[in-house]
Amino acid sequence: MAERQFSLGALAEALGAVLEGDPARIVTGIAPLEAAGPDHVSFLTDARYRAQASRSRAGAVVLAADAEPLATAMLRVKDPGQAMIRLLDVFHPRPVPTPGIHPAAVIADGARVDTTASVGALAVVERGAVIGAAVRVHALAYVGAGVEIGEGSEIHPHAVLEDGVRLGRRVIVHAGAVVGGDGFGYLFTDGAHRKIPQVGTVIVEDDVEIGSNATIDRAMLGATVIGRGTKIDNLVQVGHNVTIGEHSILVSQVGISGSSHLGRGVVLAGQVGIADHVTIGDGAMVAAQSGIHADVEPGAKLLGTPARPLMHAKRIYLTEDKLPDLARKLRDLEQRLDRLDGGGKAGRDG
Amino acid sequence: MAERQFSLGALAEALGAVLEGDPARIVTGIAPLEAAGPDHVSFLTDARYRAQASRSRAGAVVLAADAEPLATAMLRVKDPGQAMIRLLDVFHPRPVPTPGIHPAAVIADGARVDTTASVGALAVVERGAVIGAAVRVHALAYVGAGVEIGEGSEIHPHAVLEDGVRLGRRVIVHAGAVVGGDGFGYLFTDGAHRKIPQVGTVIVEDDVEIGSNATIDRAMLGATVIGRGTKIDNLVQVGHNVTIGEHSILVSQVGISGSSHLGRGVVLAGQVGIADHVTIGDGAMVAAQSGIHADVEPGAKLLGTPARPLMHAKRIYLTEDKLPDLARKLRDLEQRLDRLDGGGKAGRDG
Amino acid sequence: MAERQFSLGALAEALGAVLEGDPARIVTGIAPLEAAGPDHVSFLTDARYRAQASRSRAGAVVLAADAEPLATAMLRVKDPGQAMIRLLDVFHPRPVPTPGIHPAAVIADGARVDTTASVGALAVVERGAVIGAAVRVHALAYVGAGVEIGEGSEIHPHAVLEDGVRLGRRVIVHAGAVVGGDGFGYLFTDGAHRKIPQVGTVIVEDDVEIGSNATIDRAMLGATVIGRGTKIDNLVQVGHNVTIGEHSILVSQVGISGSSHLGRGVVLAGQVGIADHVTIGDGAMVAAQSGIHADVEPGAKLLGTPARPLMHAKRIYLTEDKLPDLARKLRDLEQRLDRLDGGGKAGRDG
Repeated sequence: MAERQFSLGALAEALGAVLEGDPARIVTGIAPLEAAGPDHVSFLTDARYRAQASRSRAGAVVLAADAEPLATAMLRVKDPGQAMIRLLDVFHPRPVPTPGIHPAAVIADGARVDTTASVGALAVVERGAVIGAAVRVHALAYVGAGVEIGEGSEIHPHAVLEDGVRLGRRVIVHAGAVVGGDGFGYLFTDGAHRKIPQVGTVIVEDDVEIGSNATIDRAMLGATVIGRGTKIDNLVQVGHNVTIGEHSILVSQVGISGSSHLGRGVVLAGQVGIADHVTIGDGAMVAAQSGIHADVEPGAKLLGTPARPLMHAKRIYLTEDKLPDLARKLRDLEQRLDRLDGGGKAGRDG
Repeated sequence: MAERQFSLGALAEALGAVLEGDPARIVTGIAPLEAAGPDHVSFLTDARYRAQASRSRAGAVVLAADAEPLATAMLRVKDPGQAMIRLLDVFHPRPVPTPGIHPAAVIADGARVDTTASVGALAVVERGAVIGAAVRVHALAYVGAGVEIGEGSEIHPHAVLEDGVRLGRRVIVHAGAVVGGDGFGYLFTDGAHRKIPQVGTVIVEDDVEIGSNATIDRAMLGATVIGRGTKIDNLVQVGHNVTIGEHSILVSQVGISGSSHLGRGVVLAGQVGIADHVTIGDGAMVAAQSGIHADVEPGAKLLGTPARPLMHAKRIYLTEDKLPDLARKLRDLEQRLDRLDGGGKAGRDG
Repeated sequence: MAERQFSLGALAEALGAVLEGDPARIVTGIAPLEAAGPDHVSFLTDARYRAQASRSRAGAVVLAADAEPLATAMLRVKDPGQAMIRLLDVFHPRPVPTPGIHPAAVIADGARVDTTASVGALAVVERGAVIGAAVRVHALAYVGAGVEIGEGSEIHPHAVLEDGVRLGRRVIVHAGAVVGGDGFGYLFTDGAHRKIPQVGTVIVEDDVEIGSNATIDRAMLGATVIGRGTKIDNLVQVGHNVTIGEHSILVSQVGISGSSHLGRGVVLAGQVGIADHVTIGDGAMVAAQSGIHADVEPGAKLLGTPARPLMHAKRIYLTEDKLPDLARKLRDLEQRLDRLDGGGKAGRDG
């Protein structure tokens, strides 16, 4: 989007990098190794991509201080990943919103919007909501009654924060995400499902990111809690009264049923399902599409539905591949044994 | 949210409960057994939580008339579940919207909004829509042309009711749900998928609840029908021309393909997938993440992809756990047999 | 919805059909075989439904030129599928929007809206957006800064096109879909997940359809690309830097992880998950709920998690059904062999 250009000398300074190459050389963009041309700076953040880096046409490459040299200009840094992030910001600076409330936004009486916050066109902020410093509420976003949004958070178009939800600082809620919808709770009585009022809330701690069209239900009583630094991908479902520890990762289309508890640093790969009232220990990792129906130990690696320890599940999977063969061999053995013992004393044939 | 307080005497009256304890004692909130303190009333709705009830610090507990006594004040009732719902309402009464149309809502000419209904800020109601008594259309909701919404229904922010959809009474549509999007139907011809017009509608009967960001597609012809009292969780997909009977339960992220038919009281657990043109009998239950590719008998309990009868699937799962062992044992047997018969007459080794 | 009526003679002309029956006979609607009455025209698009056609009460049936005759009036055509689409259009013509911008829409300075386009109530079009000829932007839709929408496209209520996204011609984006949300990319450093800026875009080519509440993430760098004629169902997730070839089909709730590449004419059935950095060849078909973790050959048919060739997976599945039996037989064999050889030389019992 942005069209910016820098000399390698200027980039070296911005990144705190040691430059091996011509500081006057100009680059006009950042691109991955395979797409970069002579006017681009690229990055080698992982030694696995070494061969790609050698083949790359990039005019310059950011790489680790101790990486093997390349034939092109090199910007050597301590942490190439962080340098890549810095480069992305340098070439593609985020537009800074003008603080203030768009004239077509609807702010209810008694809502408080910090003067450094911005509220977009046709956003709705209901009574009693409190919007902190430097918060960005995009166009058509909905901020319910009594919602609190901490400093520096960003609420994308069509995101919905239902009444009473509380967001920490630097939280990002992507488009269409719904935070604080009712939990799914009913009492079956007199032949019908009677709704159990969901009167709790959702607490989203600092530095959480919630993906597009994800849904985080409010607690029946108390709070559903998303721990600090946890990242939630698109279309994820978090049920009522769930608690998630800090710095966990929920990949797209994960579903967590009510009252389950995830520890710190848990990683759930795509489309994983977690049953209700389950506890998942710190640092556990669950492979894509797995189903968890019982408590998980800290650090466990699981796969399958219902999930098994990763290595066990892989061994079973490999054996399954031979299952039709095994069944045939078993029949062969039976026949050979029949010939040996004349059918066996048991005479049984299941 | 609400801060309210009641004497146990007053609560006993409200619940029709028999109080064993001091009627003058004041409680200021309702909380689950494990979270309740001396100022809270709690509830024991299931004998399984008996031990938790004994340990609870709750100032009073609602429980069944015939439950074993606890050391704290007791409110004995016939149905503790219903009493819990009543208590939640008592402590957390839902805000009653003021009837009327927010000045920033956009109501098309020819739409009819009952005078007892409320329409929030920046909601859109298109031409020919009919909004019944005591309906609540929240801010930023979309009500398409010709849509009918029955008495007492509630449409949350950013919910979309596409043209011509019909909702019964006391229907709840949560935030971001889309009712009446086009079904997924194409004709592959001349090397491209040509869209089949989806000209049918969706009929949602009384007392249905539709979760956040769920999607219910309109029929190609005729109607997709959600039966009375059925509850649909977040992010569920219901395809075109599906019909669902009364009082069924679709847990989060379930997907039902086109033209399938569910009976009454069907329960689909989280992330279940149903193929197209399948019939599922009354009262069938499908375990989480299962896949259904063929008709299901009434009352069946199924698990797996493709699904099998629950007990059979569990037996297979347990045997699979030993599969690498079984394969090894089979090799051992083969070798023992080789030693016995010198390799066997068949001489075959698959 | 529409109430229209036609003579069979007029329909024959509209369809280019050969009529066998009374050209003056009037029909008032189109209905499927099983629902049609004497006033309806129906269609037999597939010989499998021959028996239903014979039983149908339809006043007339559209069918193939060489199909066996029915007892009712017949409209014989070369391609009954295309004729059905034509009939649906004839009986249910789509409302043609009046070009122009609703007075309650918010169009930023510098956005360009073609005079033949229509923009609904409370839609937001940000600065620099370009909306082409005959485009329809529905009420409450969001068109971000710099977005381009090609001729004849339709953006449903509450759809979100984030900044810079480019849509081709005749693209349909259904309600609540989010195109251009940030990809899910973090760098784990200093004990926290640091966000990698997602500065790329999304390119949606001509004739693509994107379902309700689907999410298509923008690339980190470069573009996520949806190829011409590809159809994406509701609640599908497409990760950053994914590319999808032409005329592919992604059924509801499919998830595609970042940087994977799908060829032309790929079909992913419901709830399929694709890992990251995977390449799927042209014409590959993946059965519902399968998980793909490695590259897939063109034309392959796969099933399972992790997926196997369809026929192999089915054979394994059928053998699994007998797994408890097989385990029992194995125990029997062991015992018979023990009796024969006195426990075996190995004396091993796993």
